[in-house]
Amino acid sequence: MNFNKVSGGVCAPKGFVAGGIHCGIRKNQSKKDLAIIFSEKECTAAAVYTQNKVFGAPIAVTRENIAGGKAHALICNSGNANTCNADGIEKASLMCKLTAKALGIEATDIIIASTGVIGQPIDMDPIEKGIAALAPLLSADGSSDAAEAIMTTDTKKKECAVTFRLGSCMITLGAIAKGSGMISPNMATMLSFITTDAAITAEMLKAALQEVVDDTYNMLSVDGDTSTNDMVSIMANGLAGNAPIASKDEGFEAFVTALRMLSTELTRMMAADGEGATKLLQCAVTGAPSKDAAKMVAKSVINSSLVKTAMFGADANWGRILCAIGYADAEFEIDCVDVFLSSRAGQIQVCKDGFGLDFSESVAKKILLESEILIDILMNQGEAKATAWGCDLTYDYVKINGDYRT
Amino acid sequence: MNFNKVSGGVCAPKGFVAGGIHCGIRKNQSKKDLAIIFSEKECTAAAVYTQNKVFGAPIAVTRENIAGGKAHALICNSGNANTCNADGIEKASLMCKLTAKALGIEATDIIIASTGVIGQPIDMDPIEKGIAALAPLLSADGSSDAAEAIMTTDTKKKECAVTFRLGSCMITLGAIAKGSGMISPNMATMLSFITTDAAITAEMLKAALQEVVDDTYNMLSVDGDTSTNDMVSIMANGLAGNAPIASKDEGFEAFVTALRMLSTELTRMMAADGEGATKLLQCAVTGAPSKDAAKMVAKSVINSSLVKTAMFGADANWGRILCAIGYADAEFEIDCVDVFLSSRAGQIQVCKDGFGLDFSESVAKKILLESEILIDILMNQGEAKATAWGCDLTYDYVKINGDYRT
Repeated sequence: MNFNKVSGGVCAPKGFVAGGIHCGIRKNQSKKDLAIIFSEKECTAAAVYTQNKVFGAPIAVTRENIAGGKAHALICNSGNANTCNADGIEKASLMCKLTAKALGIEATDIIIASTGVIGQPIDMDPIEKGIAALAPLLSADGSSDAAEAIMTTDTKKKECAVTFRLGSCMITLGAIAKGSGMISPNMATMLSFITTDAAITAEMLKAALQEVVDDTYNMLSVDGDTSTNDMVSIMANGLAGNAPIASKDEGFEAFVTALRMLSTELTRMMAADGEGATKLLQCAVTGAPSKDAAKMVAKSVINSSLVKTAMFGADANWGRILCAIGYADAEFEIDCVDVFLSSRAGQIQVCKDGFGLDFSESVAKKILLESEILIDILMNQGEAKATAWGCDLTYDYVKINGDYRT
Repeated sequence: MNFNKVSGGVCAPKGFVAGGIHCGIRKNQSKKDLAIIFSEKECTAAAVYTQNKVFGAPIAVTRENIAGGKAHALICNSGNANTCNADGIEKASLMCKLTAKALGIEATDIIIASTGVIGQPIDMDPIEKGIAALAPLLSADGSSDAAEAIMTTDTKKKECAVTFRLGSCMITLGAIAKGSGMISPNMATMLSFITTDAAITAEMLKAALQEVVDDTYNMLSVDGDTSTNDMVSIMANGLAGNAPIASKDEGFEAFVTALRMLSTELTRMMAADGEGATKLLQCAVTGAPSKDAAKMVAKSVINSSLVKTAMFGADANWGRILCAIGYADAEFEIDCVDVFLSSRAGQIQVCKDGFGLDFSESVAKKILLESEILIDILMNQGEAKATAWGCDLTYDYVKINGDYRT
């Protein structure tokens, strides 16, 4: 089966329109801060949320709204997380009502998300005006504006779309996403909004999302901080005309494959654009004794401040990789582990059976000066594998976060 | 009972001599790299070690040497961790033999530690010459040189000593320690070598050490990376002449109090001198539903890169503190939590019952510009408490670790 990337983001699937504008939540007028995605037909819907005990009001409202597996539109603002505010739920609900009114749908049919500073009361005035202004602007070309409007410290828009053929129907999945700090591998991370024109039941949509999230978004770490507002949502409007996917059959498997491809791509984009990042890091663990061990080891390495700073400095300080493997909270043997470092400039093995190997520092330097670094860990004690993505830790991460609010 | 700080470090207790020299493991000739501590009388001894599955050869050798609860001397080098080297155990054992010969004791009576780069074969030539040169130089004034010789990226020597009276005897405890990166709160951390002239059984020494380590060294975090070579050791030579402490009586409690005071002081020193640090952070959690919850919450906040960078920027971004509380892996309620920020410049409450409070940004800035910041978290749901220590995350952390090996 062929899976092809296409342009158009969340509007690539049939029947979706989107848009994004600056409404005034952010002071910088050149920065869009309000996005809407709308399906002409009501969708089956599913979402996964942050596991943080502190969660944004929009998370609570969305969880309630899509409990029945249906949604019709999505609204998201940047510049304010609407979290830890006493009036948060009330205001998130009001945002849904205003959006519903502007789009002619039910307020309970809306997925809502907010991202930005925690604990500052959100001003409804620009949002009210913004929703009224944005609703008539939604179009099939609007994915890019929506992707821009949900950015916080991201430096690049993140969009992707994938198509595949199921029987006689072309099915398309599209998505936008945002990083780029307060991202931890332990849980559902960041914001990613996925659309599809596949016909698929809410139950199967939820199963597909959970399966893919565990291997993609949940394997991403920028800084080990799990945000209060993380959410990945998916809306399926059925306009592709396929026989509805209602069980874990061949169609479901194809859908999961496309969703995994889309989500992996967005995860890589978020890792590469992590706060202050100069390099994308990918840690692939194979030969692990269990899936859990593979994941814990990959995350432990990707999350290590010392590995991340060494990669920033293009320093093949592999002892830090071994150290991070060693404190991963899982059951495994350390004395049969091999480690390789590679990039498009080449590959070197730095560690065999848990001990260091001689290698050329100049070759290592050349490999690590590239912008995408692969850390391959062969555990040689089983069949399980996992991959995690992250980025280096740089001066700019400190700069960005040393005074984020001003 | 009075507990008083005194000078002299590990040589403050009766019968201990120490010293430190540059032997040539490090290229920089002005940097000492070899330390020895020696007791004129054989000691009862105990130690706690890193929980990392990757651990240095010296850890393995020490564990075996003091399994019987006895030690006579300690040797430590900086500049090379002797970890992940195929010949590590052999060389660590040889270091013990050479030290034993120079001091006229048994090789199995030696505590050995190494700190520095992981995975580079350790050169025995400078060490062999260094031990022979250092042994005759050991003196009661040598604690400071020993403290200097175990430093890696530390910028300050870390020494402390405490005395108290038990019956008619003055008992003294002394210690040296080193940070300052690859320090995580989950386990035994860094190197700290404690001496005392108390008479105390090996069993009680071990019990006292474990009790104190859990509340002090194990509550320290610089970067969340658990080192491969962490160790805290204690040697007690009995020369104070007290009736041996052999049970958990009043004498034991006094000893634990002194040990806690000493260890808290060293923990604070290590936090303040964390790699690149400009500020000491202390997070005190009270009113927690369990000791475990108190510890997890305190560590979660102290370990958050986003809290650490905000403190570097003197930015009262308390939402990040709430976020880090929220993802702490423990059972508790979030909606009754209060948060205060303070320093010697004053105190402000930033959060009540999980929601933000209005506060003066200029007052907050003034408080956070100080070099020691207290984050007080009142959980209002129980009696348990815990304190964790750490530091801010700065440009210099990235600089130090971006190219540590060269």
